Amino acid sequence: MRAYDIILKKRNKKALNIEELKFMIQGNIDGSVPDYQMSALLMAIFLNGMDKKETTFLTKAMIESGDEIDLSSINGIKVDKHSTGGVGDKTSIVLAPLVASLGVKVPKISGRGLGHTGGTIDKLESIPGFSVDMSEDMFINNVNKIGLAIGGQTKNLVPADKKLYALRDVTATVDNISLIAASIMSKKLVSGADAILLDVKTGSGSFTPIKEDAFSLAKEMIDIGYLMGRNTVAVVTNMDEPLGNTIGNALELKESIETLHGNGPDDLRELCIELGTEMLILSGKYENREHATEELINALDNGSAWNKFREFIKIQGGDLSYIDEPEKLRLSPLSKDVIAVNDGYIHELIAREIGEVSLILGAGRKTKEDEIDHGAGIRLYKKVGDRVSEGEKVASLYSDSQEMLIKASDKLEKAIKVGSEFLSPNKLIHGIVKKESVIH
Amino acid sequence: MRAYDIILKKRNKKALNIEELKFMIQGNIDGSVPDYQMSALLMAIFLNGMDKKETTFLTKAMIESGDEIDLSSINGIKVDKHSTGGVGDKTSIVLAPLVASLGVKVPKISGRGLGHTGGTIDKLESIPGFSVDMSEDMFINNVNKIGLAIGGQTKNLVPADKKLYALRDVTATVDNISLIAASIMSKKLVSGADAILLDVKTGSGSFTPIKEDAFSLAKEMIDIGYLMGRNTVAVVTNMDEPLGNTIGNALELKESIETLHGNGPDDLRELCIELGTEMLILSGKYENREHATEELINALDNGSAWNKFREFIKIQGGDLSYIDEPEKLRLSPLSKDVIAVNDGYIHELIAREIGEVSLILGAGRKTKEDEIDHGAGIRLYKKVGDRVSEGEKVASLYSDSQEMLIKASDKLEKAIKVGSEFLSPNKLIHGIVKKESVIH
Repeated sequence: MRAYDIILKKRNKKALNIEELKFMIQGNIDGSVPDYQMSALLMAIFLNGMDKKETTFLTKAMIESGDEIDLSSINGIKVDKHSTGGVGDKTSIVLAPLVASLGVKVPKISGRGLGHTGGTIDKLESIPGFSVDMSEDMFINNVNKIGLAIGGQTKNLVPADKKLYALRDVTATVDNISLIAASIMSKKLVSGADAILLDVKTGSGSFTPIKEDAFSLAKEMIDIGYLMGRNTVAVVTNMDEPLGNTIGNALELKESIETLHGNGPDDLRELCIELGTEMLILSGKYENREHATEELINALDNGSAWNKFREFIKIQGGDLSYIDEPEKLRLSPLSKDVIAVNDGYIHELIAREIGEVSLILGAGRKTKEDEIDHGAGIRLYKKVGDRVSEGEKVASLYSDSQEMLIKASDKLEKAIKVGSEFLSPNKLIHGIVKKESVIH
Repeated sequence: MRAYDIILKKRNKKALNIEELKFMIQGNIDGSVPDYQMSALLMAIFLNGMDKKETTFLTKAMIESGDEIDLSSINGIKVDKHSTGGVGDKTSIVLAPLVASLGVKVPKISGRGLGHTGGTIDKLESIPGFSVDMSEDMFINNVNKIGLAIGGQTKNLVPADKKLYALRDVTATVDNISLIAASIMSKKLVSGADAILLDVKTGSGSFTPIKEDAFSLAKEMIDIGYLMGRNTVAVVTNMDEPLGNTIGNALELKESIETLHGNGPDDLRELCIELGTEMLILSGKYENREHATEELINALDNGSAWNKFREFIKIQGGDLSYIDEPEKLRLSPLSKDVIAVNDGYIHELIAREIGEVSLILGAGRKTKEDEIDHGAGIRLYKKVGDRVSEGEKVASLYSDSQEMLIKASDKLEKAIKVGSEFLSPNKLIHGIVKKESVIH
């Protein structure tokens, strides 16, 4: 087998088989296929496309490039959840204990924030003592004991994805549905869950701003999941405005705590219940959607989700006093308000811009090496469709740096669009993509 | 300017401008644009195409990647000739002195053979003492003095072409008309001639086996020539069977000598007269085609082309006794004949296969570093359309190695197709592609 012939085949619009994709992926990892051949193949894939089988083969080849996690010693159906990334998306913090409190196992490998999007681990690390550093055995033990664990990536998982992404990033081959789907699904499938729920974001703050693209990506990922023998469901949700009212690590943790107490912003609560319902159905423990939804609402309102969250924070080393008294969670000392200059209605809260504002404030990372400030961020007092009056507070910003605070508030003012006409709130759930059963 | 944006632009089917192409070409040469970005661009160019202006910009960027030859100190119109490469193509050896004998300046930079195609310099080097090693000054002096010179590449001409070709060769992006045209034309234009005649080969032994592709390549090159301000004409000619009756360096030199004496194979003589006519017209010295053709025939038949050839070999150091008594030119000691096993007509002499047979015999180079055997090669006694009888000799092979001789004759037998039906000879000239005048 020669890299040349594989590139030629894709250049000539033919479908690649599993051996060919493994040859390229493995060869690129071990250095026998140089980057200049891999990038030519990536451009040929970008321009000539891949069918669903090829995309699944690519996913498989990527998974086999590194270690895999074996969760077979966890009893019961294990359900994983993944969001394609957004601004203010703290769903996992609420959802994992919520679903686990209803007897479904949630072993979750999470990431850190990068660019305009935040990461679950960063948010949880606002709690002194909380840690995702644990052995695979401890991760499995925790899931068996309390029903959930959130870990960071310790093993050499999907090294091909890092290598490929770095190459795609500099050769204008990132925004291709097949390549994105293979990247996401390889990382989810390698984690060993039996079923996967995907929250595919669409809108300005997502990586698939166009709704049709989000649905295409969702369909592609569902197909990969099923071809790989895992029940997979995708929910396409809005990311035109940030989710909930806060952006920033400690701020988002506080909001998650409120939601776990049965309060919190409507959109966050609604999304957690919607995604939770799909997870319960995926687990096989619930067959009736209405019943599943009802149980989730009860778990949020009767304290059982909250109690599960406390167990989870405790077992992973977190100081419970910080979640029991969230006012102890430190916010950055400097703050600034954004005030409405006209009467009207909020027409837009451009999520991507607001994500970038949080970066300026110090809440995120421009590069993987950046340190973050857990106390920095934004609190929004209004959502799209809300009425505002002249002089009313629309948002507050928190930072350690006066200079960045001014820069950030200038940018935030431009990301908030107020119009005189009434506008209905954004639709949160655009659709659910699913199949009937696993195809083996 | 960023390589990423240039790749993105071509990926999105937009036309690149001269600055962008220079940035990529120059950057790839100096290392600031890595090969993996260049190969992604090459694949995007391959799949999305380039218009004539872009192709000319690429040609220009490639020319500017290295040194250029200044021929302005040569008096009169200088006409260069280039063949896209074939098997048995010794045209330049006849054509350069033939045209020079009629007062047209022919400063020619030639190459060596590689793969199944031969090279003019290798053939001339069958003559002891003959050398293409000379300074640019000497090259110019020779052209001013006797009207022609054939040099090798001494300066750092079009380094981008070598770099790009090496990358195209391993990324399945070689056979694209725009990239081929830019590669050929950059090397021709850098040599400084005022007018260029292109012999575009088509058929099994060429790099454009499909006739339509050869015409597309011809048109593309003509356009580049004119956009760069040089009169350019292309003749599309047959390369389904080898040109003439010999393949191999000394063998082809002998055949060229016969042709310069007014004899030689019909197809070689016809092609030299046809290409010569175009060169005379391009030079501006002749306006009437019939008159030009007549003069060429006279020059071949009255000894003036031959005398010019002797002057040329002498000035470049060759031992004239070897061309005056060509039987002195050494052939390889071992030989083997291929005999017809049936009565019939020659239907095919598959040029590419025959070129590969000559490689096996030692007449060519698989890689640039290979040594060649000037005495090795093939003599054909029949051409397509000729009648053969059972037991009649169809070809002789010459080599230094008995083992290779057997391997080569087995392969040659398969490359000669004999059928029972009468077949007319191959058409030599498929067409001429030209424009009316230089567009400035």
